[in-house]
Amino acid sequence: MGKNIVQKILGAHLLDGELVPGQEIAIRIDQTLTQDATGTMSYLQFEAMGVPRVKTEISVSYVDHNTLQSGFENADDHRFLQTVASKHGIHFSRPGNGICHQVHLERFGIPGKTMLGSDSHTPTGGGIGMIAIGAGGLDVAVAMGGGPFYLTCPKVVGITLTGQLSPMVSAKDVILEVLRRLSVKGGVGKIIEYKGPGVATLSVPERATITNMGAELGATTSIFPSDEVTKAFLKAQKREDVWVELQADDDATYEEELTIDLSALEPMVACPHSPDAVKTVKEVGPIKVDQVLIGSCTNSSYSDLMKVAGLLKGKTVHPTVSLGIAPGSRQVFEMLARNGALADLIASGARILESACGPCIGMGQSPNSGAVSVRTFNRNFEGRSGTADAKIYLSSPEVAAAAAITGLLTDPRELGNAIDVAMPEQFLIDDSMVLAPAAEGNDVDVLRGPNIKPLPINEALANTLQAPVLLKVGDNITTDHIMPAGSKILPLRSNIPAISQYVFSGVDASFADRAKEAGRGIIVGGQNYGQGSSREHAALAPMYLGVKAVITQSFARIHRANLINFGILPLTFANEAELAKVNQGDELEIVNLSEKLGQEETLEVRNLTTGDSFTVRPDLTARQVAIIKAGGLLNYTRLNA
Amino acid sequence: MGKNIVQKILGAHLLDGELVPGQEIAIRIDQTLTQDATGTMSYLQFEAMGVPRVKTEISVSYVDHNTLQSGFENADDHRFLQTVASKHGIHFSRPGNGICHQVHLERFGIPGKTMLGSDSHTPTGGGIGMIAIGAGGLDVAVAMGGGPFYLTCPKVVGITLTGQLSPMVSAKDVILEVLRRLSVKGGVGKIIEYKGPGVATLSVPERATITNMGAELGATTSIFPSDEVTKAFLKAQKREDVWVELQADDDATYEEELTIDLSALEPMVACPHSPDAVKTVKEVGPIKVDQVLIGSCTNSSYSDLMKVAGLLKGKTVHPTVSLGIAPGSRQVFEMLARNGALADLIASGARILESACGPCIGMGQSPNSGAVSVRTFNRNFEGRSGTADAKIYLSSPEVAAAAAITGLLTDPRELGNAIDVAMPEQFLIDDSMVLAPAAEGNDVDVLRGPNIKPLPINEALANTLQAPVLLKVGDNITTDHIMPAGSKILPLRSNIPAISQYVFSGVDASFADRAKEAGRGIIVGGQNYGQGSSREHAALAPMYLGVKAVITQSFARIHRANLINFGILPLTFANEAELAKVNQGDELEIVNLSEKLGQEETLEVRNLTTGDSFTVRPDLTARQVAIIKAGGLLNYTRLNA
Repeated sequence: MGKNIVQKILGAHLLDGELVPGQEIAIRIDQTLTQDATGTMSYLQFEAMGVPRVKTEISVSYVDHNTLQSGFENADDHRFLQTVASKHGIHFSRPGNGICHQVHLERFGIPGKTMLGSDSHTPTGGGIGMIAIGAGGLDVAVAMGGGPFYLTCPKVVGITLTGQLSPMVSAKDVILEVLRRLSVKGGVGKIIEYKGPGVATLSVPERATITNMGAELGATTSIFPSDEVTKAFLKAQKREDVWVELQADDDATYEEELTIDLSALEPMVACPHSPDAVKTVKEVGPIKVDQVLIGSCTNSSYSDLMKVAGLLKGKTVHPTVSLGIAPGSRQVFEMLARNGALADLIASGARILESACGPCIGMGQSPNSGAVSVRTFNRNFEGRSGTADAKIYLSSPEVAAAAAITGLLTDPRELGNAIDVAMPEQFLIDDSMVLAPAAEGNDVDVLRGPNIKPLPINEALANTLQAPVLLKVGDNITTDHIMPAGSKILPLRSNIPAISQYVFSGVDASFADRAKEAGRGIIVGGQNYGQGSSREHAALAPMYLGVKAVITQSFARIHRANLINFGILPLTFANEAELAKVNQGDELEIVNLSEKLGQEETLEVRNLTTGDSFTVRPDLTARQVAIIKAGGLLNYTRLNA
Repeated sequence: MGKNIVQKILGAHLLDGELVPGQEIAIRIDQTLTQDATGTMSYLQFEAMGVPRVKTEISVSYVDHNTLQSGFENADDHRFLQTVASKHGIHFSRPGNGICHQVHLERFGIPGKTMLGSDSHTPTGGGIGMIAIGAGGLDVAVAMGGGPFYLTCPKVVGITLTGQLSPMVSAKDVILEVLRRLSVKGGVGKIIEYKGPGVATLSVPERATITNMGAELGATTSIFPSDEVTKAFLKAQKREDVWVELQADDDATYEEELTIDLSALEPMVACPHSPDAVKTVKEVGPIKVDQVLIGSCTNSSYSDLMKVAGLLKGKTVHPTVSLGIAPGSRQVFEMLARNGALADLIASGARILESACGPCIGMGQSPNSGAVSVRTFNRNFEGRSGTADAKIYLSSPEVAAAAAITGLLTDPRELGNAIDVAMPEQFLIDDSMVLAPAAEGNDVDVLRGPNIKPLPINEALANTLQAPVLLKVGDNITTDHIMPAGSKILPLRSNIPAISQYVFSGVDASFADRAKEAGRGIIVGGQNYGQGSSREHAALAPMYLGVKAVITQSFARIHRANLINFGILPLTFANEAELAKVNQGDELEIVNLSEKLGQEETLEVRNLTTGDSFTVRPDLTARQVAIIKAGGLLNYTRLNA
């Protein structure tokens, strides 16, 4: 039976399990990437694993998130990242070299390879035919150490593209259409594979825009074929040698299918406050726009910014609009500076921002209160811009440029002719801001500022767990509740002792102190505990505070995986009503825990305070039992290295 | 008797008093400028004066300080500034158009004119032959309303320049030499006038570097002649029509004189933590450099950055250095983008920052802990970089570029030949990002976000002052003690109710609440009360909290002027020892205050709590008495409009 591209790549990298949707599989990872906001912890974890050099084909550490540097912490982190990369065989992309996904696509991505990245938009690499998946920093550390990546084998959704995009309609409009149809939950447990005659009409950066924002579908990743377009892109990047062709077999099958006629698409926006609240620009109408921002890993390629420069040339940004532009990479930035396009952008009145993620992750450029902000980014969650009541519309570069000129949400086709940007025959190649690692890592001193603390390591599971209930919470507790973010707390992400002080700080300000005093503890909660982001600090920091188990009515998937990764036992009530049998402050006990785990489906928990008892389920695979017993994935990996 | 240039300009603008050093004089102000960090308050004050249109020849409102926008406040302020400018006849330079002093020099400065600016580096305009003085926002508001500016007539220091600068020696080295000789207190009560044959060898931007950093001497301002060089600069800016010649008479005299041989200068740095801790680069030696920053109102002109681009061309920033470059204006930025120099800077690995003040005012780019940072800026006070233990060296662009390349503090002459930058025959002129005010202001709505609160107005002086001592402090209380700054408090500067909550917050966290509860109060202090910056919030916010008088052993000069401006009575103990007669919480009373003020040299203060009494001195001029009686300069100006 014929195979689709996903099956081909996963099959070639399969280490364990079967390619049956829903089953756990293990795959070999060829490449990794990290960014600085998640990277510091990932490398501290890699160091703790004791592996001297990475075992991947290539691993790259980027700096693109914390580039504002409002305090010593960011620059200290950058120095740590640079030196730890050199020591352990990782390439280091210096601050100013651009956004990880854009640079990786240009300089490192290879069709047919697998990549794990500690950033949710890692699927950008699918534009060049990779299986590129976002994951927690510890998973990336394990992959760097040569360990497999475990995931639930996803369904493959085949999206057939027909026709071709009309002038002023853009790759962004393709992914907005997919989001409109499938919603932000439509990709969960799935990989999206694009196919059909429309594929050949899209450049690699256009494909990357589409796979990048597949993250907003909740998809595991998205992927395009590798074809002559891919080959031409790689040739223009002087990397033709790494090209391989990747096409689905003619008789390949997909768990789901849909078709999009590119010719029928028109300019769209995702309305506040969700990436799937998609309407055509005409439907929304000419609302007044206060701010336009162009850039991010979704839309900051050479051709994106050339189109914007062409539209803005000779015009002035509308007097009531602030336009900010952050080029996606130093390659893009320098090419625009060499060919005059950057001068045209400056002349138009654009505020040129450093080549980095910048305002897409709320790092500056917060708009005025109540503002309408049109952005070429990928997320428009409420408050993410830094202005609580701002209304963010996600759009293509063309729609953004039109809004900047007119001061209104405007169909760019009203501006006149589209800008035709030819893909360069030759990109400007200069990798001097990517530092190769030291040939001999032993001699490299890893520089750690006062903010970079050693990684706390969990202990192996004890056979008897006896601990107090430190906190009892309700339903739908998010990772923001467990481990808040924001400008005050984010700079502490490489300092677990400091950041752990903020665990549950919005829920119960005394939590951290109480946990430390108790020395060990259990958290009890209701339904859907740990929903939201994938941040591993929501498991790591509680672990540091001595949390040994979390007992709930149900868990959110990724947070549960993170708890296991850090050796915290996730347990669910066998009978949900028995939640009522536990109160904050009760002393609980599970005896013969280590012996029973993996052997018995349920465990008995005794409430020493009330004299009562109740039953819980661990629901762990054999591998997960071994991880929990070892005290987390890090210890497990070291034991099995 | 012949006149120097200062005497000529002040004489032509004299409205009151005599040009005798030490006497109070009043001068007419032709131009004003504001930046956004001080401007919001200045325009709120202007609005409160009730003058519909500014009466200056030109007033310009710039946005260059709060451009990071980590929250809605900055963008709200920008919108307020834009609309209030349009309404009242003020030009508005949009965010991204550049640093106020650089843009003003390029597009608005006129030889022989007077300018008042709400920024301490306003003396930059002296490079083009203006008397350009930094002042508080209220003084600027009064000047916009057509009121005179009062100052103590300064001494004039004549500095004769001979010879000419050697290759790789720079205008920055001239002002560093002046700082080395005179110290940071050497300019207090003085204006520095440059003269001699060396003047003609310096371009207008070079002269502006020298007058800009004259602020660090504590000087009232600094000025250069207006000559053929000035004329050529104005011609290249298409403003030749505003040129007038300005030279000192041959027999002009100066209160002090010194001579600097430009030919004898060599590359220098101001060492941590003072702009006058000046040594030659060779004396300091090849210390390791972690960060280099190029820009600021001191060194971000076209020729400054062209020199840097020339030195960096074909080279890569040293692997252990982070180099940031912020062009001084959109004119500079676009010219570098048109001629390829910006591409060379990007290629070298420089991080290109928005055209704004940026890291010079601690807005981002804080270096790593313990870092050595070489900056072309004007201040290297401890902690100003945002990193408490960083060591900041101030240098020329040439020294900065050399450090970026080598990773060490390096005499740029070791790099080889100097870069010869010809002054352009024609600068790139495009004022489209400077918005002219509305022809008819009545129709303009001033947009105020929730952070922009109405200006609190003081009441006229009561004849009996009875109030409790809210706080008793010791010697050398700074304006940072009285009204702290920092990233948390700065965004509140247009919101006096909110910012007043932080008055004395580092000294006594309960101060603001106590003051509000009392409804009125007195502060008692020791020597040198109010030293430090000129921030008027250190008077305005206490005024809002009900502070009616401050009784001390002595005051710092600028803070005392600010207290008077906001209607707070500054009193000194006739007998310093009587400070001991007052304790925090005592109820004090001065009767017949309004009657006696201006009539009697001393006032009797009764301590109602102890039954004791003591004598204080107001030491006010007749004008100051009238201001105090009116409840501050704003009320006084309205009464006398």
